[in-house]
Amino acid sequence: MARINENYRKLRAGYLFPEIGRRVRAYAEANPDAPIIRLGIGDVTEPLVPAVVQALKDAADEMGTAEGFHGYGPENGYEFLCDAIAEHDYAARGVEIAPGEIFTSDGSKQDSANIQEIFGTDCTVAVTDPVYPVYVDSNVMAGRTGEADDAGRYAGLVYLPATEENGFSPDPPAGRVDLAYLCSPNNPTGSVMTREKLERWVAWAREHQAVLIFDAAYDAFIQDPELPRSIYEIDGARECAIEMRSFSKRAGFTGVRCAYTVIPEGLEGTTAGGERVSLHGLWNRRHSTKFNSVPYVIQRAAAAVYSPEGRKQTAEQVSFYMENARRLREGLGAAGFTVFGGEHAPYIWMRTPDGLGSWDFFDRLLGETHVVGTPGAGFGSAGEGYFRLSAFNSRENVDEAITRVGRAFGR
Amino acid sequence: MARINENYRKLRAGYLFPEIGRRVRAYAEANPDAPIIRLGIGDVTEPLVPAVVQALKDAADEMGTAEGFHGYGPENGYEFLCDAIAEHDYAARGVEIAPGEIFTSDGSKQDSANIQEIFGTDCTVAVTDPVYPVYVDSNVMAGRTGEADDAGRYAGLVYLPATEENGFSPDPPAGRVDLAYLCSPNNPTGSVMTREKLERWVAWAREHQAVLIFDAAYDAFIQDPELPRSIYEIDGARECAIEMRSFSKRAGFTGVRCAYTVIPEGLEGTTAGGERVSLHGLWNRRHSTKFNSVPYVIQRAAAAVYSPEGRKQTAEQVSFYMENARRLREGLGAAGFTVFGGEHAPYIWMRTPDGLGSWDFFDRLLGETHVVGTPGAGFGSAGEGYFRLSAFNSRENVDEAITRVGRAFGR
Repeated sequence: MARINENYRKLRAGYLFPEIGRRVRAYAEANPDAPIIRLGIGDVTEPLVPAVVQALKDAADEMGTAEGFHGYGPENGYEFLCDAIAEHDYAARGVEIAPGEIFTSDGSKQDSANIQEIFGTDCTVAVTDPVYPVYVDSNVMAGRTGEADDAGRYAGLVYLPATEENGFSPDPPAGRVDLAYLCSPNNPTGSVMTREKLERWVAWAREHQAVLIFDAAYDAFIQDPELPRSIYEIDGARECAIEMRSFSKRAGFTGVRCAYTVIPEGLEGTTAGGERVSLHGLWNRRHSTKFNSVPYVIQRAAAAVYSPEGRKQTAEQVSFYMENARRLREGLGAAGFTVFGGEHAPYIWMRTPDGLGSWDFFDRLLGETHVVGTPGAGFGSAGEGYFRLSAFNSRENVDEAITRVGRAFGR
Repeated sequence: MARINENYRKLRAGYLFPEIGRRVRAYAEANPDAPIIRLGIGDVTEPLVPAVVQALKDAADEMGTAEGFHGYGPENGYEFLCDAIAEHDYAARGVEIAPGEIFTSDGSKQDSANIQEIFGTDCTVAVTDPVYPVYVDSNVMAGRTGEADDAGRYAGLVYLPATEENGFSPDPPAGRVDLAYLCSPNNPTGSVMTREKLERWVAWAREHQAVLIFDAAYDAFIQDPELPRSIYEIDGARECAIEMRSFSKRAGFTGVRCAYTVIPEGLEGTTAGGERVSLHGLWNRRHSTKFNSVPYVIQRAAAAVYSPEGRKQTAEQVSFYMENARRLREGLGAAGFTVFGGEHAPYIWMRTPDGLGSWDFFDRLLGETHVVGTPGAGFGSAGEGYFRLSAFNSRENVDEAITRVGRAFGR
């Protein structure tokens, strides 16, 4: 009699984004002429840059030849890609990360869902609230929580409210926590962690021998060169932090799939008996047993992001989206909304008008303006009363969305 | 204090294939002139067929345009691919599988490692011995076993010996088992399950409400059209079986990464309270939370395998490898070895000569003939005394390997 993993039954509703997709599809079917503008799921819209397209095509040709064919690759990624990452994402900012400390993968969603597997199920986990749902759901599935309460908060998880008062960037917890997920620039609030804030977290983690799981999937959107892009820019972070980065947003790879996780040699967890064990070694065992490398053509495409043309072309794309973000922030601000984020991140986080519940606002916005956003409550109970808009769309659509939303709900 | 998942510490040595890779690299460094022939890791060697290369390039071009760009795809795969799978792999053999029952992924290694997550940790798991190591290791990591004994057998797992006596295809177990992993055509033994054998397993699973995890990654190598290619060719299998298939071997996708898992609607597991729960629903939740779809360009490449040219070209490639298998089987047989498999699978399973231990034979074969194979013991204790050779290589290398092995160890 095959028993199921009953932890799955604790999960509240579907995963957020498929749920939004379902509501939008149902609306579009009932209203086929509605000119829907999607600023909900944070999915990029600009085409792949020419340097990436060319690299994909060259690699495809290579794979069609006897000399250039590549079968199974090294689980952690080809040297050409790991070397480029180490050089451009780390050494260029004065951070020493060895190529062997980098594990390439098919997405930060996967990495951030899977990383918890190498930790004990008795670890206490902290997340910010609101939060990217994958951190929470993957821990629920693994049995690190009890049931959810009416507000959707799971027993056993430590929630750190990200509020207007703390700039949507909470301080470390006072009680016992073993693992903490941080995301900066933040999804969904668009906030960014300062050097001082990161230093406080690193000091806390080292004092408590906790591990920080630092999701920097949006680092390319940081506009101020003084702000840290990597947690390893903070002294001591190599002893307490795992970092994740992605090509999804910086290079339009949401449908291409490439990301990486850094686990420094020397970062350790402990056994019940107090023995210290390399987390790099554990993740390496997981990665080589349960993963089989990123497609060769995709690794070539990712490496092309670091070529001179690739860097220039993807930087222009990021600038394009950040101009969208500026327009959303300023346009909606001028229309009377209270808006946050959008300065170092492709997300605008706004208060819902008239104290509307965030799912109510979602439905009304869709019905009255045909604009799709993401309800703040979908990211956690502290997101209630807020709403996320993404800057990923054409200029025309962004401008049109600002006009429609301002007209329908502005002051 | 971050505790680790101590189940990882039960794992014996490294994952098999990286371990072989390490030994071969060390040998090659010490003997840079040795003309090594790799028949170890089951990695394809022929280039991608033209239809696949063209599809990759066309899709790359599409992704470089505003109209043709694809961001996040449906987690389970694009309709164009799921429809092609349902039509060509199932309907063409009289089996009805709905496109919505198909979950595309980046590999059967991943799927077969991840599928255990939706089941309770108290499930009793059966594997054949020898066996593809991922089935075992993923269950060890999840805590479904105790420690390994000196022979590498984990406490709590049910091992079903695959022996010469049972044609390397064991019958269902007598005692309680909730999940059973089957692989046909078999890796590593190259055996294939007959219709009668599959019927016996399906009847057993239905009687015990057990779930069969049927890995058909090598189905394209079946030469006899009367042999089942899918477990769903057996009546009742929809109520008890999950099936996995891959493009890795049938179309040379080991470095391209695409596979799929079928979970029929209506297949169920149970809770401790006896409630019945859809496994399709659970896997859908896992897939949409922890995975983010196969790259668009890769899904287009996989779909091209089903085009008229793609089918013809990949069939020729499979025939090429099967001619290699025939030569290995007959050549080594003529040299006095006792060989199995290779008739409906790209693997030859042979007894080691002179009763040599299989790792000893690995080292001697490498040292004396520069041929790399896989020690049977690497697949489980019942594999001791056997050795796997793969048919994936050039004709020239296969012929040369037969000559060298025959000369050094033949009768």
